[in-house]
Amino acid sequence: MTDGRAPARITTPTDREIRIERVFDAPRDQVWRAFTDPAIVTRWWGRGNRLDVERMEVVRGGHWRFVEHAPGGLEGFEGRYREVTPPERLVQTFEWDGMPGYVAIETTTFEDLGDDRTRVVTLSLFHTTEERDGMLSSGMEEGLNQSYAALDRLLAAA
Amino acid sequence: MTDGRAPARITTPTDREIRIERVFDAPRDQVWRAFTDPAIVTRWWGRGNRLDVERMEVVRGGHWRFVEHAPGGLEGFEGRYREVTPPERLVQTFEWDGMPGYVAIETTTFEDLGDDRTRVVTLSLFHTTEERDGMLSSGMEEGLNQSYAALDRLLAAA
Repeated sequence: MTDGRAPARITTPTDREIRIERVFDAPRDQVWRAFTDPAIVTRWWGRGNRLDVERMEVVRGGHWRFVEHAPGGLEGFEGRYREVTPPERLVQTFEWDGMPGYVAIETTTFEDLGDDRTRVVTLSLFHTTEERDGMLSSGMEEGLNQSYAALDRLLAAA
Repeated sequence: MTDGRAPARITTPTDREIRIERVFDAPRDQVWRAFTDPAIVTRWWGRGNRLDVERMEVVRGGHWRFVEHAPGGLEGFEGRYREVTPPERLVQTFEWDGMPGYVAIETTTFEDLGDDRTRVVTLSLFHTTEERDGMLSSGMEEGLNQSYAALDRLLAAA
């Protein structure tokens, strides 16, 4: 368990996908901004570690690149936006420098639950089952819950 | 038919793949260089159109970006190298600006046929069958054969 809200619900709907579901105690517009405004992303995505947002052009065809200053060293992540539909849907590629050329497609939807809460669902599609399983065994779940707990604190303070 | 040698043999071994096979009349080291040296790539990849090689770092994790000056306008292509094993194997991602965030994995092998000929096989893996079929219906085959015919002329002149 992490601090903050309940951990994200992680499932594998098909053999090449990971589905992540999490509810945030904030209105949808606010959650959308937290995912798409570099000045806000930099405050939670790195799980408390310093994060350099080197590039983040949130438009179709734009690129993003983040570098996390993790205890073990720098960790780079990057990708490109396939679809940007505020405040509902964001589709982007995701690639970690440690495995360059292995690309997942992340489709994130933001659902207004009507009571100032927002459900965020990310469906990640991989080229192969092995890549999907590699991601699952990478410590992704812990890192994700740390990031989301940091986002909880930020949303609560806003 | 194009000028130069016989056109590439294009098949679909699975529902998310395209396989392209072509023999070139040149030793493997020379063909490898033609695919990995920016100064040579710029002379054939664009099918006779001007090609700007904006970025081409042929190492694992490096990026590439080409802009073709096609009759209808500029066409951008980019990706990242997953594996670089001279003179045998090159694995990279491939993305066209017209469909940003749609990423194929291209695995190209260079087989020395022992008589100063080289077989080049590219296997492209897509996230979905729809993306694969979109590529097949994009005019890819004609463009590819034009590029390879330009490469034939270059290899013959070398």
